[in-house]
Amino acid sequence: MARQLMVDLYGCDEALLNNGEELQKIAHAMIESIGAKVLEEHIRKFSPIGITYFAVISTSHFSIHTWPENGYAAVDLFSCGDFNEDEFVETLKQAFSATDEKTQLIERSEVLK
Amino acid sequence: MARQLMVDLYGCDEALLNNGEELQKIAHAMIESIGAKVLEEHIRKFSPIGITYFAVISTSHFSIHTWPENGYAAVDLFSCGDFNEDEFVETLKQAFSATDEKTQLIERSEVLK
Repeated sequence: MARQLMVDLYGCDEALLNNGEELQKIAHAMIESIGAKVLEEHIRKFSPIGITYFAVISTSHFSIHTWPENGYAAVDLFSCGDFNEDEFVETLKQAFSATDEKTQLIERSEVLK
Repeated sequence: MARQLMVDLYGCDEALLNNGEELQKIAHAMIESIGAKVLEEHIRKFSPIGITYFAVISTSHFSIHTWPENGYAAVDLFSCGDFNEDEFVETLKQAFSATDEKTQLIERSEVLK
């Protein structure tokens, strides 16, 4: 059984959302916080602004898509490993200095229910 | 506004789910079907079985995680471009020869609602 956590972050700093290195640092900290490891990663800068960070991790994947002009970031964690979603979201919100967030948690089951 | 489509595919062929090249072909066809382009991609084989395919695409991301031993694949499309979800899911189901599927569609808004 895997779980997919989708976090929409609002009111984030525009400069942070367009800084690939800073987003990578946040991603590494978040991935480490759940005891997973980065296996592959990509940072893609879009023109004129906006970044996609994506990592294949030992327990599935972690991604960030940013819309700096809106102060918005869409973060996804797909993990077959255990994690505390409340702690994860709170740490994420602080890392992005977000003023608001919306969280959705979905179960992805390898057995049809 | 972006939409995230999560498709759980059941009853798939075990050999297909452990064949990175075949999964890549399916991914390319699916990405092309929505008019998007692959910008970066990775295929990761897990030991002893299981594959993660991930692509950063022009409209966000597309991923496949497989559990061959269960005949199960978890497919994700995160897209800020338009797409027909029913057609997408039907084509996907056929490509994987899945016997059952479960679909969840979520709106990811860059404006807090």
